[in-house]
Amino acid sequence: MYKQTLLETRQRISSFVHNTPVLTSHLLDDKSGAKLFFKCENFQKMGAFKMRGATNAIIQLSKEQQERGVVTHSSGNFAQALSLAAKNLGVNAYIVMPDNAPKVKEDAVLGYGGNITKCESNIQAREEAATQIVSEKGATFIHPSNDLNVILGNATAGMELLEAHPDLNCVLTPVGGGGLLAGTALAAHYFGTQCKAIGGEPMLVDDAFRSLQSGKIETNTTGNTIADGLRTHLGDINFPILQQYVDHIIRVEEDEIIKAMRLLWERLKIVVEPSSAVAFAAILKNKAYFKGKKVGVILSGGNVDLDTLRFS
Amino acid sequence: MYKQTLLETRQRISSFVHNTPVLTSHLLDDKSGAKLFFKCENFQKMGAFKMRGATNAIIQLSKEQQERGVVTHSSGNFAQALSLAAKNLGVNAYIVMPDNAPKVKEDAVLGYGGNITKCESNIQAREEAATQIVSEKGATFIHPSNDLNVILGNATAGMELLEAHPDLNCVLTPVGGGGLLAGTALAAHYFGTQCKAIGGEPMLVDDAFRSLQSGKIETNTTGNTIADGLRTHLGDINFPILQQYVDHIIRVEEDEIIKAMRLLWERLKIVVEPSSAVAFAAILKNKAYFKGKKVGVILSGGNVDLDTLRFS
Repeated sequence: MYKQTLLETRQRISSFVHNTPVLTSHLLDDKSGAKLFFKCENFQKMGAFKMRGATNAIIQLSKEQQERGVVTHSSGNFAQALSLAAKNLGVNAYIVMPDNAPKVKEDAVLGYGGNITKCESNIQAREEAATQIVSEKGATFIHPSNDLNVILGNATAGMELLEAHPDLNCVLTPVGGGGLLAGTALAAHYFGTQCKAIGGEPMLVDDAFRSLQSGKIETNTTGNTIADGLRTHLGDINFPILQQYVDHIIRVEEDEIIKAMRLLWERLKIVVEPSSAVAFAAILKNKAYFKGKKVGVILSGGNVDLDTLRFS
Repeated sequence: MYKQTLLETRQRISSFVHNTPVLTSHLLDDKSGAKLFFKCENFQKMGAFKMRGATNAIIQLSKEQQERGVVTHSSGNFAQALSLAAKNLGVNAYIVMPDNAPKVKEDAVLGYGGNITKCESNIQAREEAATQIVSEKGATFIHPSNDLNVILGNATAGMELLEAHPDLNCVLTPVGGGGLLAGTALAAHYFGTQCKAIGGEPMLVDDAFRSLQSGKIETNTTGNTIADGLRTHLGDINFPILQQYVDHIIRVEEDEIIKAMRLLWERLKIVVEPSSAVAFAAILKNKAYFKGKKVGVILSGGNVDLDTLRFS
């Protein structure tokens, strides 16, 4: 039922996003035992796949809605994405950010013309601040991951990957809020050939893994993973999509994430976020499963704070 | 006189090296005031332009010479390049490395099948160790930068860049031993349209700048720059080429190199060595000169030791 919608979505946002390159590496193939195709969303505009969903969500608003602006709460990449997508479309963006957000991400939001409202770093404070902006400005709230238009926009990364490499056996993404994995699972279902969608998730915030097991949306008690983009939980719009279209989720430890990220930096010579390395870490952890398969990996973004990042 | 030789060189090594991508960035254009074209030799095989010169130098040896192997002394990238190029061509490579070389580079040489001989970290010890291998094995010594076939091989990066963007006003490279700048200057002269070749050099090891001023090969008393690939000095083969074909050399301070490298990592989302950032730092330091110009920048390599690299 989504095939035509996905094709229209890709057409709709194509002039606002990059068709990002797909990198390969003999050395990483040797290390994993699989044939890997890395879809480099770190090279996407503003440095992450979230540009895709944000752009689609704003374009799908009515003219009247666009004139009143958009609002979101985000710990980072979606804040930048909504700011830049809004700027490209002549729309105001109001961004609620936790007061402990990395400075590099805050500066980027300001650079893209977003209007920042700071709040305490908890979900209740964020939602209250966003609700207040909705009522004051008449702005439309756009959720970073639990929004169908965001999910459909995110799906276009997987569509491009499968257009370039139609015979992938599976495609992996990190899973945090669930928006990228849901979109990618739709892309795999409608544009792959028996292509499985698989998630990679930090063990420390394994809510998505537990949600698929229990059949209801689970949350995390702690969120202290290096993969800071993956600390959120699923929502009622993306969860049914994950239930229907995702094959399984693989959990990885923190040291496995760092080791995988280091391999990507050293061997592909690209800057990727810890969250991006989670899907690759899942492959390295399950070599027997992926052995000999053609595996797509969506590297979700490349916005890191070089001041704080340490490999040792 | 070199035009046909350069075309033959490019043909000769084409199946052994990547035609690396050229990246652009609106943000870095805005920051510099120029239109920048980054030739990404960090994506070259073994992670640096040196693969080009090493491959050409080995292919140009006779069968008998190839059978006895090749030897060089190098603090890093040329050691890897000669090892991999030799492996690709079925030749033995003997590598003299200083005992303080980064472990990541030593491991890479071993990974590419090179045979390492350790020596003290001074030029005399290196040359003695190399001479001993030449006399024992009958191997041919190949200098990392002061060898015409190496220079001609290096030139192919600039040739590819100018083929993709023929109207560059100038092209910049870092200058250490002089092999990349010499090759690039030849490429600019024979394949550009009034395209100037400009070097970027750390102030701490500004021997090339001083050599062009004095008319003779100068050396450095200290070598403590973060751009560890640039601590060497010019040679009698590349110096005349630099004198004839290089427009000028711009010197940059250590903090300017680190700032430039950080911009490349953060904005292009790529991993480049400090040496690679020196040419970009030269542009940022001389914005008035480069304003409005189309400027090629050869990013020389991406082999960094993530354990020791710090931005703050």
